[in-house]
Amino acid sequence: VTSPFAVLGDDLWVDDPDVAASYAGDRSGHDSGPVAGLLLPRTTADVAAALRIAHEHRVPVVTRGAGSGLSGAAAAPAGSVVLSTHRMTAVLELDAAERLVVVQPGLVTADLRAAVAAAGLFYPPDPGSVAFSTIGGNVATDAGGMCCLKYGVTGDFVLALEVVLADGTVARTGRRTAKGVAGYDLSSLLVGSEGTLGVITEITLRLLPAPAAARTAVATFASLESAGTAVAALVGAGLPLSMLEIMDRTTLRAVDALTRMGLDDVAAMLLLQADDADAPATVAAAGEVCAAAGALDVALAEDDAESAALLEARRQALPALERLGHWLLDDVCVPRARIVPLLQRIEAVAAQEGLTIGVFGHAGDGNMHPTIVHDGSEAARAAVRRAFDAITAAALELGGTITGEHGVGRLKRGWLTRELDPGALAMSRAVKAALDPRGLLNPGSVLDP
Amino acid sequence: VTSPFAVLGDDLWVDDPDVAASYAGDRSGHDSGPVAGLLLPRTTADVAAALRIAHEHRVPVVTRGAGSGLSGAAAAPAGSVVLSTHRMTAVLELDAAERLVVVQPGLVTADLRAAVAAAGLFYPPDPGSVAFSTIGGNVATDAGGMCCLKYGVTGDFVLALEVVLADGTVARTGRRTAKGVAGYDLSSLLVGSEGTLGVITEITLRLLPAPAAARTAVATFASLESAGTAVAALVGAGLPLSMLEIMDRTTLRAVDALTRMGLDDVAAMLLLQADDADAPATVAAAGEVCAAAGALDVALAEDDAESAALLEARRQALPALERLGHWLLDDVCVPRARIVPLLQRIEAVAAQEGLTIGVFGHAGDGNMHPTIVHDGSEAARAAVRRAFDAITAAALELGGTITGEHGVGRLKRGWLTRELDPGALAMSRAVKAALDPRGLLNPGSVLDP
Repeated sequence: VTSPFAVLGDDLWVDDPDVAASYAGDRSGHDSGPVAGLLLPRTTADVAAALRIAHEHRVPVVTRGAGSGLSGAAAAPAGSVVLSTHRMTAVLELDAAERLVVVQPGLVTADLRAAVAAAGLFYPPDPGSVAFSTIGGNVATDAGGMCCLKYGVTGDFVLALEVVLADGTVARTGRRTAKGVAGYDLSSLLVGSEGTLGVITEITLRLLPAPAAARTAVATFASLESAGTAVAALVGAGLPLSMLEIMDRTTLRAVDALTRMGLDDVAAMLLLQADDADAPATVAAAGEVCAAAGALDVALAEDDAESAALLEARRQALPALERLGHWLLDDVCVPRARIVPLLQRIEAVAAQEGLTIGVFGHAGDGNMHPTIVHDGSEAARAAVRRAFDAITAAALELGGTITGEHGVGRLKRGWLTRELDPGALAMSRAVKAALDPRGLLNPGSVLDP
Repeated sequence: VTSPFAVLGDDLWVDDPDVAASYAGDRSGHDSGPVAGLLLPRTTADVAAALRIAHEHRVPVVTRGAGSGLSGAAAAPAGSVVLSTHRMTAVLELDAAERLVVVQPGLVTADLRAAVAAAGLFYPPDPGSVAFSTIGGNVATDAGGMCCLKYGVTGDFVLALEVVLADGTVARTGRRTAKGVAGYDLSSLLVGSEGTLGVITEITLRLLPAPAAARTAVATFASLESAGTAVAALVGAGLPLSMLEIMDRTTLRAVDALTRMGLDDVAAMLLLQADDADAPATVAAAGEVCAAAGALDVALAEDDAESAALLEARRQALPALERLGHWLLDDVCVPRARIVPLLQRIEAVAAQEGLTIGVFGHAGDGNMHPTIVHDGSEAARAAVRRAFDAITAAALELGGTITGEHGVGRLKRGWLTRELDPGALAMSRAVKAALDPRGLLNPGSVLDP
C-alpha cells in the first residue's frame, strides 16, 4: 500500500522503517512504537503540505528537533509519522537595530547564540542541552537553563511565531515590537505546548546587548542543607546574580571522574555568577552570604578560563551521571525557601530505596534535577519508579511543580492531572480540542489521550 | 419580571437601571447600552454563582475594574450585566521570602504597589492610570506603563491566576514557583484577554527587591525628529535605562498649563531614568548620547523631589490633554527604529486634517500615544476618525501593532482583523469558542461578534 505521504516525494518523505525509527524517541528512554515514516521538511510550505495530508488521512504526527528531550514528548506512538525539523536551520533575519532574530526551528541553540554573538548581541537561554538541542524544541518545551535566575526562560524571548495548525493552516502569532496586546497571546499558548497544538515553523526572538564580563565564584559546603540555607539567604538578599547553581556530592564525584577537576571532597557546591557592571561587588557580597551560611570555602574564579571551566563542570553534571549506569532524571521546582526540605526528602527517599540519587540544578529558581542512577535490573527499576514518584509528590506537597523546565511529555502526563485542578484541566482539554479537533498532534503527550 | 440574578440577594445584585448604568463604560467614550443590572461580588464564590446564572439564562456579562480603560472593553452592550470587581480589594497573602503577593482583582494598583513597598519589595508595572486602575483590569489588558523598557509589562509579573470560566467553573492556572512548564500556559492566555475568556478572581504576582535610588534626567529638543533620533541612538547604545519617555510640544504646553513647570518652550522632551547601582553613570552616558543627537539641553534632576516632579509632569500628559477639550487617544507601537517615520506621519496627518495631535509615550518601547484634541463638532469628529485610522494604519505599515498596551476592546476590533492573519484569527476564534461556547463574556470586545 502506498502511503498518502508518498506524493511529497522521496526528498521529503522516508518510509524505510529503520530510518524512521531512528528519528523516533528522545533521551527519556520512553518506548516509541513502530512508526509509519519520517517527514523531512525544509520549508513552512513543506510542513503545511504534510499536515494537510495527515489531517485528511487522520495520521498522528510527532514533531521533533534534536531528540534531546527528557520527558518522552518525542517518543512517537505506533502508526504515527515523525516530523523532524533538522533541515530547517536557517537564520532568516538578524536585525541588530531592533535586537531581534528570525530563525527556523531546527537551528541548534548554540549555533543561534553564536550567530547573534557575532553581531554583538546576546540570546540568554542556555538549557543543559544547548550544544545539541534545537531552538524549536526549546520553544516547544519552554526550556530553561542556568540563565533563568536573571534572564528568564525561552518563552520570555519569543516575540512571534509562525505555526502550522493541525489542518495545515499557517498562522502567525505575536509581533516584532517591544510591546503589543492585539488579541490573545497565542505565542505563549504555543510555547511549552510540546508539539500538541501545532508545528512551529518560524521563531522571532528578542535579543539583548552583550552583557559585561561575568564574574564567577564557587562555594563549597559540608552538607546539602547548609548549601540550601545559603541559597535561601542569597535569594533573600536580593543580589542581582545571573546564575546560582548547585551540585551535590554524587554529582561532583561523577563530574570529577569525567573532568579530573578535583571536586570530589565536598558535600555540595554552589556556583555563582554576576554579569552586570557591578559584578565584582555582587559576587563578593554573595561570597560573604555563603560564608555566613557556613561555607567551607569560597573561591573567586581568577580569570575567564577558570570561570568557563567551572561552568563546564556544571554543564557536565548530567553527562557525568549518565556514565554511572542507567539513570532517570527528575525535574521538579519548589518555592526557593523550600529547597532544604526538598533535599531532605530526596535523601530520605534514596536511603529508603537503597538508591544513589545525584542532585544538581538551578538553585536560584528552586529547580532541581534529582537523578537516580541504577543498575538497570528489574528490581532496581521498581525502586527507581517508587523513588521518582516520591520525589515528584514531595515537590507538589512543598508547593512546587512537577516540572520546572523539561516538560510533561509522556513521562509525567499522569502527574499533570495531580498538579492541575479540574478547572484548569478542562480548560487545557478545551483548548487542545479546539486547535487539534482530530487529536493528531503528538497524541498521548502532555494530556491523557 | 424578576431577574434570575435576584436570588443572589440585594447585596450582590442591583437592578436599578441608573445605578447599573453608572458602572457601564470606560474612558473611551464608547456607548454602553441599557444594561440589565450590576453584580457586586466580594468573593470567588460570588462570581461563580453569578456566572452560573448568566450561563443558564444566556445573559452576557461585562467585567470591569475601575472603568479606566481606553479601548471600550468595559462598554457594556444592551441587555448585558456589569460585573464590578470594586469590592474585591483584599491582599490575600504577601510572602516576602518568595517575593510574591496574592491579591483580589479589584485592588487599585497604586495600593498594591504601596502594600508591597511597605515590605521592602517592588511591583514595577505602572500604567498611566496606576493611581486609580485596578490590578484585575491591568491583567485583563496586560497593561504597560513607563517601567516596561527595563521591567516588562503586567503579564511578565503574573505567576498564577484564579479564574471563573463562562459556565461558572473555577480554575487555577500557573504556579507559585520561579519556573514551571506543567501544561499549557493558561495564565498568559488569560492575560490581555479583556474579559472575554473568563473573570479573573485572584492574582499571584512575582515581586522584585526594591531598586536602588533612581537617577532622572531630561533632554529637550528643537524638533520631534531630533528627539526620535536620540531615542534610536539610546536604544542602539544598549544603556540599561529603566525609563525613556517622550512628550511633544502640544503635550508639554498642556502639561505646563496644568502644572506651571515651565515646560512650554521646546518641541520635544525626553525623560530618562536609570535605577540600578550604576545609575549615575548610565544617565550621564545617556545625556551624552542625547547631546550628540542634537539636544538643546540636558539636565539631571538634582534630587528625588525634582525627579518626582519630572515624572509627575509625564504622568499628567493625558489628564492635561483631556482638559483641552474632546480627545481621542491612540496607542500604537512600532519597531524602535521607526519612531521618527511614525512621528512624521502623525505630523502630516495633523496638518492634512487641520487637527491638534499631542504625542507622548514610551519611546524606549516604540509605544506612542498620539492624542487628537478637538472641539467635539460633527465635522471635527469625522476628521478625528480619519486621523485616528490613518495613524493606526501607519503603525501597521511601519511593522508595528495597533495597540501597544491599551487593548483592542470595542475601539479597535475592526483593526484586529487587519493586524492578524487569517490563521491567527481562526486560532483566536477557536479558543474563544472553546472557553466561552455561548459567547457570553464581554461579547463584541476584541473579536467581532
